[in-house]
Amino acid sequence: RTQSHAAAAARLDLSGIYPPIATPFTAKEDVDYQKLEENLHKYAKIPFKGQTTRATVQLTEKMAAAGADAVLVVTPCYYKGKMDSRALIQHYTKVADSSPVPVVLYSVPANTGLDLPLDAVLQLSQHPNILGIKDSAGDISRIGLIVHKTKTQEFQVLAGSAGFLMAAYCVGAVGGVCALANVLGPQLCELERLCLSGRWEEARVLQQRLIEPNAAVTRNLGVPALKQAMEWFGFHGGACRSPLQPLTEAEAQRLRRDFSSNGWL
Amino acid sequence: RTQSHAAAAARLDLSGIYPPIATPFTAKEDVDYQKLEENLHKYAKIPFKGQTTRATVQLTEKMAAAGADAVLVVTPCYYKGKMDSRALIQHYTKVADSSPVPVVLYSVPANTGLDLPLDAVLQLSQHPNILGIKDSAGDISRIGLIVHKTKTQEFQVLAGSAGFLMAAYCVGAVGGVCALANVLGPQLCELERLCLSGRWEEARVLQQRLIEPNAAVTRNLGVPALKQAMEWFGFHGGACRSPLQPLTEAEAQRLRRDFSSNGWL
Amino acid sequence: RTQSHAAAAARLDLSGIYPPIATPFTAKEDVDYQKLEENLHKYAKIPFKGQTTRATVQLTEKMAAAGADAVLVVTPCYYKGKMDSRALIQHYTKVADSSPVPVVLYSVPANTGLDLPLDAVLQLSQHPNILGIKDSAGDISRIGLIVHKTKTQEFQVLAGSAGFLMAAYCVGAVGGVCALANVLGPQLCELERLCLSGRWEEARVLQQRLIEPNAAVTRNLGVPALKQAMEWFGFHGGACRSPLQPLTEAEAQRLRRDFSSNGWL
Amino acid sequence: RTQSHAAAAARLDLSGIYPPIATPFTAKEDVDYQKLEENLHKYAKIPFKGQTTRATVQLTEKMAAAGADAVLVVTPCYYKGKMDSRALIQHYTKVADSSPVPVVLYSVPANTGLDLPLDAVLQLSQHPNILGIKDSAGDISRIGLIVHKTKTQEFQVLAGSAGFLMAAYCVGAVGGVCALANVLGPQLCELERLCLSGRWEEARVLQQRLIEPNAAVTRNLGVPALKQAMEWFGFHGGACRSPLQPLTEAEAQRLRRDFSSNGWL
Repeated sequence: RTQSHAAAAARLDLSGIYPPIATPFTAKEDVDYQKLEENLHKYAKIPFKGQTTRATVQLTEKMAAAGADAVLVVTPCYYKGKMDSRALIQHYTKVADSSPVPVVLYSVPANTGLDLPLDAVLQLSQHPNILGIKDSAGDISRIGLIVHKTKTQEFQVLAGSAGFLMAAYCVGAVGGVCALANVLGPQLCELERLCLSGRWEEARVLQQRLIEPNAAVTRNLGVPALKQAMEWFGFHGGACRSPLQPLTEAEAQRLRRDFSSNGWL
Repeated sequence: RTQSHAAAAARLDLSGIYPPIATPFTAKEDVDYQKLEENLHKYAKIPFKGQTTRATVQLTEKMAAAGADAVLVVTPCYYKGKMDSRALIQHYTKVADSSPVPVVLYSVPANTGLDLPLDAVLQLSQHPNILGIKDSAGDISRIGLIVHKTKTQEFQVLAGSAGFLMAAYCVGAVGGVCALANVLGPQLCELERLCLSGRWEEARVLQQRLIEPNAAVTRNLGVPALKQAMEWFGFHGGACRSPLQPLTEAEAQRLRRDFSSNGWL
Repeated sequence: RTQSHAAAAARLDLSGIYPPIATPFTAKEDVDYQKLEENLHKYAKIPFKGQTTRATVQLTEKMAAAGADAVLVVTPCYYKGKMDSRALIQHYTKVADSSPVPVVLYSVPANTGLDLPLDAVLQLSQHPNILGIKDSAGDISRIGLIVHKTKTQEFQVLAGSAGFLMAAYCVGAVGGVCALANVLGPQLCELERLCLSGRWEEARVLQQRLIEPNAAVTRNLGVPALKQAMEWFGFHGGACRSPLQPLTEAEAQRLRRDFSSNGWL
Repeated sequence: RTQSHAAAAARLDLSGIYPPIATPFTAKEDVDYQKLEENLHKYAKIPFKGQTTRATVQLTEKMAAAGADAVLVVTPCYYKGKMDSRALIQHYTKVADSSPVPVVLYSVPANTGLDLPLDAVLQLSQHPNILGIKDSAGDISRIGLIVHKTKTQEFQVLAGSAGFLMAAYCVGAVGGVCALANVLGPQLCELERLCLSGRWEEARVLQQRLIEPNAAVTRNLGVPALKQAMEWFGFHGGACRSPLQPLTEAEAQRLRRDFSSNGWL
């Protein structure tokens, strides 16, 4: 099994920009598959490198059977007081042992209240079926240190937000899984290209214009704003499902300003 | 509908002590229904007043059809940055509007990272199908204030932990949903009786002996400790499901000491 | 020295209600000693039991020389990441060893970001020159446990806020150091009397009417609100020193409502 | 006054690497001026650009009279619940209005529990006597955004820690005030040179080797570790003052390993 894992892991290159796909819903809050498909056709014209999904342990086999190249597994967090390194290492090890496709760790403290501890990341980086990590915490020292301490294992680090994408490339990340890629996908791919070709001055100018739009669709206004912005840029965003609330008029104006003041609208 | 809700709500008295039932698992991590049934027979001999379950919105109808008298609905929390009063009021209002049985709010920041805001509690307390709240945060000023501000609505406040049960009765709560009731159920019912009959000196002595065992099976060592202690007291606790880890030997000794030093073992 | 400490500690009974005195300033932000004195004359007619001050280690001798009966020593907190039990035990032990008057521990996480750990409290409770603790965190389980674990040492626990004063008495505290006592001192002393004489029903009604005014002058609007409310009740509150800001008109109205809706104005 | 402020501000270029000077103490915990002077002689041979000190408002005139080129003013934080943008803007405006030398803002949430809000930073950046900010929070998106939003004001941003120094340069910072500069000053100045000359690949290798030593002398082991490491590198570190505790033997070994495993010892 280890051998096939290693082969699977070797097969998959995570570098590049990934949008965590926003899901369009119908008026009845069912998934709107037709609009989702139209979005995917549009995304297909942007040089993204793949697609991920967050999954619970039980979903990995289904995801693999459905054609997933890899699974993105968020930290379990309800009993967060008990989620120490020991528990998290065992959890991810079990998932990676049984998953037919490679596993990517996912640490997103803003949502889970839990940061995957560094020692757990380093130990899990040695598992043959664990490819890398999506780190949304944004602690750039930690991201640099993960790159540094795993450099002999080809462990791949992905920035979890467009707000620190350039800095993450700067310290050795290979890409990003960025909500903003649902809206400004081509721009993020351009930022990637500038970083990879060492054109840091141009990268800085572009990066700076992306911070406010990114903050708007993530920590400030969240998924409702992401979906609204998608509409402005020709994608189907649609409504959110409750308990997420639609934007107020004031919030929508603020969102528009965060894009327009940076020259995107 | 409002009328039937009001009737349903009127029907149900939440006062008393409730154990959030621990679920025994088989070696394969399936629910062990036989052992669960045996536990329930034992619990039936303790003067508990009912049974609750945390549920997502979609589960309330199933729960009602299965015979639940009420549903305990935890705050949604994954996108916690967006879970403001507006979103939470709308969420609970929708659930309560559609639930065939009364709804009890459930705020447990230690697990969810989110405290149901006071203004949301006060507004929701006016819904005819919302009976009360299980408050596990343990902010006794807040609990007293909720009682004070809802006194004309017969809104029922339940302490979410045995550690502050006596203090909660003291400021006007009507009962508790306490993990410790899975282990020391008779003692918690005795504490209730002492509080309700105004024997506060005796209540204090008993309450003080319950704080350490309670902390051990909740915030300190959690569900694995609860299940271990259940075994010591003649219930089926059994194993936890991953990622919760079994107690280490040192933790088990510490757990035992927290019960024995208070005279329970 | 231990003997004289023990004698000193034995001499002082901390039970009762204490106002942490608000300091009036002149227009130039100097201390207004005349108005302070007038306040003290008014306070003298309320059955408070004493007066404390928070002090750094270096101030204790000055305070004793100036006539202080005891010193209230807040946890050091700037390097809070390093303030573990070891450091805090050593800190307070040094202070208590050298202080001519008894020491009262003071834990106020809302201001310091640091809770004095339980094990440190328990160890320090054995020092002959440490009399008790002012606990402003409001974790009533913890307060009950401190009382329980120190009952053989006559260690005295004081509630750090009027919001949980009754609950604190209920679990064994001997008094409170309450900002609200600068405004509603007689009412807090009445609450004390009701608790100590076992008239818990009346105590509950009074306690509930104090929670909102207390929250207003502490965590919600803070010292500027405390000083404004003092003016309304015949004391000299006066201005705050920068960077604390005066209340806005809307805040002043909200403050008034928190007192008037509970029947105090 | 504004004119002289503008002139003063124009005079001072903050770019470069600054050590927040560690203070050696004698056995009696007095400042050891002789050893401090020896350290300063050694520091003088490293291409640092200046020297700063954190100061309260009342100290700025003394600091200027004593020859300070600028003052670094930490956010006030004891009543942190009241330290909103309004209060902080007024505080810093008053300080900057009266300070004879330029002011640098200082936000260090790990110590103060308070982050200077972005809107306050942006408004204060327009004050003629406020030169820049030392940002120790390490949120690289925020640092990039501050640079972006203040680019027309020549507001200078300094990284508050060596762990994210390269990333900060990458997004537009002009330097750093880094505890690690007390120990590995030449290396930090080399990192600066690599960043400023666009040699990012070499910079990355060097930056990665600095993250663990930096974490050791800041958030992990703090000032006691900084002083111990200074001794190893030929400076006088000496003891800390209580309540900071000396390193345990295990901590000293861990500290040494963090330097040696990165090739510095």
